[in-house]
Amino acid sequence: MTEISSLGEFGLIDRLTAGLPAGHASTVMAVGDDAAQLHYDGSTDVLVTTDLLLEGVHFDLTYVPLKHLGYKAAVVNFSDIYAMNGQPRQITVSLGISARFAVEHIDELYAGIRLACEEYGVDIVGGDTTASRQGLVISITCIGEAPADKVVRRSGAKPTDIICVSGDLGAAYMGLQVLEREKVASAGQRDFVPNFAGKEYLIERQLKPEARRDIIAELAEASIVPTAMMDISDGLSSELIHICKDSHVGCRVYEDRIPIDYQTAVMAEELNMNLVTAALNGGEDYELLFTVPLADHDRVKDLKGVHVIGYITDEDKGCALVGSDGESEIPLRAQGFNPLAAEEVPEEPKQANVEAKSSDSEK
Amino acid sequence: MTEISSLGEFGLIDRLTAGLPAGHASTVMAVGDDAAQLHYDGSTDVLVTTDLLLEGVHFDLTYVPLKHLGYKAAVVNFSDIYAMNGQPRQITVSLGISARFAVEHIDELYAGIRLACEEYGVDIVGGDTTASRQGLVISITCIGEAPADKVVRRSGAKPTDIICVSGDLGAAYMGLQVLEREKVASAGQRDFVPNFAGKEYLIERQLKPEARRDIIAELAEASIVPTAMMDISDGLSSELIHICKDSHVGCRVYEDRIPIDYQTAVMAEELNMNLVTAALNGGEDYELLFTVPLADHDRVKDLKGVHVIGYITDEDKGCALVGSDGESEIPLRAQGFNPLAAEEVPEEPKQANVEAKSSDSEK
Repeated sequence: MTEISSLGEFGLIDRLTAGLPAGHASTVMAVGDDAAQLHYDGSTDVLVTTDLLLEGVHFDLTYVPLKHLGYKAAVVNFSDIYAMNGQPRQITVSLGISARFAVEHIDELYAGIRLACEEYGVDIVGGDTTASRQGLVISITCIGEAPADKVVRRSGAKPTDIICVSGDLGAAYMGLQVLEREKVASAGQRDFVPNFAGKEYLIERQLKPEARRDIIAELAEASIVPTAMMDISDGLSSELIHICKDSHVGCRVYEDRIPIDYQTAVMAEELNMNLVTAALNGGEDYELLFTVPLADHDRVKDLKGVHVIGYITDEDKGCALVGSDGESEIPLRAQGFNPLAAEEVPEEPKQANVEAKSSDSEK
Repeated sequence: MTEISSLGEFGLIDRLTAGLPAGHASTVMAVGDDAAQLHYDGSTDVLVTTDLLLEGVHFDLTYVPLKHLGYKAAVVNFSDIYAMNGQPRQITVSLGISARFAVEHIDELYAGIRLACEEYGVDIVGGDTTASRQGLVISITCIGEAPADKVVRRSGAKPTDIICVSGDLGAAYMGLQVLEREKVASAGQRDFVPNFAGKEYLIERQLKPEARRDIIAELAEASIVPTAMMDISDGLSSELIHICKDSHVGCRVYEDRIPIDYQTAVMAEELNMNLVTAALNGGEDYELLFTVPLADHDRVKDLKGVHVIGYITDEDKGCALVGSDGESEIPLRAQGFNPLAAEEVPEEPKQANVEAKSSDSEK
C-alpha cells in the first residue's frame, strides 16, 4: 500500500486522472487548469470549478468567523473563473454540518456566501445539505462563462512574453501568522483581546480576500487577452511553475519587482522570516498571475494594480528568481500548501511550513 | 439557538435559500428541483446538480466496496440530470481523504467513478483533492444538457395527468436491510461468510444502482415529454408529495399498482415489515417518477419498464394511497431518509426508521 502523502495533492490528481478520455464533444478542456471549459451551444463557453473545504484542514473556527468563511469559500471559486478570463454566474453550495452547529451558525455562514454572491453578481442555484459526524464540510462549485475565443488557459505562455501579477503578495499568509500567533497567546485565557494593531491589512487579506474582477475588466477594456493566466492560491512560485510546465517554457522573475505591502514586510521582520520567501510561497492571495506578449508591455504597465515582474524564456532555461543584484539566480521551487500532507503536521502546520521554506532559500 | 434537526434537511434548505434572487439572466431555475437550469447561449440549456456524501452518514465501508461506492456516487448524480429529461455530460469529483486510506484505496474508488462515467458517456473534468481528518468525503457535481424546450421540472403536473414509475420500488432499501443484518451477524467473527442467497437482486440494487437513461430514451422515441418528473431517491411517497406541492395538485396512487420485485416481497416477509410501506418509503431506488397527460396513456402504458400507478387530482383532494379494495384511502406522508437527523440515531438508524414507518401506516 502506498501512502497518499508520498504523492502529494498534484501527484494523486495526476495518477487518478491519467488517461481520462475527454469523450463528449462538449468537453473542450478537462482536468488541469483553474476551471474546466465546456462548449455546449452558441459562442459562449461554460467554465466549471470546484473547491472542497474541511474544518481542521482548511480553516480553524477558533479565529475565522463563519460569515467570513462563507464569503471566502465563495470568492475563491469566483477567482478561479476570473483566472480563465471568464465571469462567474452561478454556484452550488453543499454543506456537511456537525451537531455542534445551530441553525443560527449556518445562517451566519450562508450570509457570508450570499454577500459574496451579491457583490460579484453570482446566483446560488443549488446544493446539498447533510449531517456530518466530524466538523464542517463546505463544497462549492462555480459555473461561469466566457466567449469561446477569450478563454485563457495556463498553457499559452510564449518566450519573450512578460509576466504580470496584480496587487501584492504574501499578505494573506502573514495574516494567517498573526491569527495563529494570537491563538497561541490566547490559549487558556479568558477575555483575551487579540492585538491586531498595524496588522489590519494582513488580517483582511486572510479573512476576507477578494477576487480580481477589476483586473479582468481592465484587461478587457484595454483589449488585452493574456496568453496564460491563473490565480495565486498556492503561492507565486508554485503557480509560475504550473504555467511554465503547462506552456513548456521557462521564466525569470526579478526579486525586487515582486509587489509586497508595507505591513507584510513589517510582519516578516517581526517573525524573522525571509520576506521574499514569504511573498513567493505564501498562499491564498488570490491575485492574478498572467503573461502577455512583449508588444503589450506599454499598455499593460499602465494598468492600475498590475505589476510587471519578469519574462518568459525557453523551456531549457528553467524557472528562476533573479536577485536584487540583477545577476544571481535562484531556481524557483513549488513550496505551496499541500493539503494532503496536512495530517502529518497537526501541530501548527503553518509554522512548520514556514521554517521549511526559509531554510530552502537560504543561500 | 435552534437545533438543526428541528428543521430537517428541506426545512434548513428552505430557510437558507429563502428570497434568493435569481439575478443573472442565465439562471433559468435555481434551487428546488433535481438540478438547476441555466441558459447561456443557443438552444441548449445547462443542467447542474450536486451531491455531498459523508462516511458514517451516507455510506458504511464495512460492507460497501470502494469501487461500488464510486460507481453509485456518480450514478446518483446522473439520475438527477435524467430526471430533468437531460443528458449528463461532465462531472467534477472532490475527495476528502483521511489518513487510513492508501493510494490503492482511492484508485478503487476512482475506478468505480470512471466505470460509471464510461457506461454513461460522461467526462470527469475537474475536482479537488484534500486530506480529511474525519473519514471519506465525496462531493460530485454533474453538468448536463437538454434542449431548452424539453427540460422537465417537478412543477408541471396537471389534474387528470397519469402517474408513472419505472422499474420496481423498495429493493434498494431491502438490500440495505440485508447488508445491515449480515453486518450485525458478522460482528466479532473471523472468516464470516455473509449469506446473500436469494437476495442478489436486493444487494445489487443497493450497491450498484443504475440511472434510468433507457426510460428517457424510450420517452424521447415515443415523443412523450412528461409534464413533471423526478428521480426516486427518498422514496415514492416523499417524491409524489414534492411533485404535488410544486405543481399545486393532489394525487391518487393505487396500492396494488406499485411495482415490487419478488425478492423485495420475500425480504419484507422475513423482516415482518409492511411491504407497501417499504415500497413507498424505502429510498435509493433511483427510478423515475413522472406524469404525462391522460391522452398519452395508451402510448406510455406500452413502454418497457414503465408502470402506470395513479393519477393527478385537484390540489384540495390531497395525496393518498388507494387500498387494494379500490376504495379505502390512506394519506401519503413523506417519510424519506433525513440525513440531518442521522446524528440523532447513531445506532442502526435504518431499523429505527422502519419501525416508525410501519407504525405510521398501521391502520
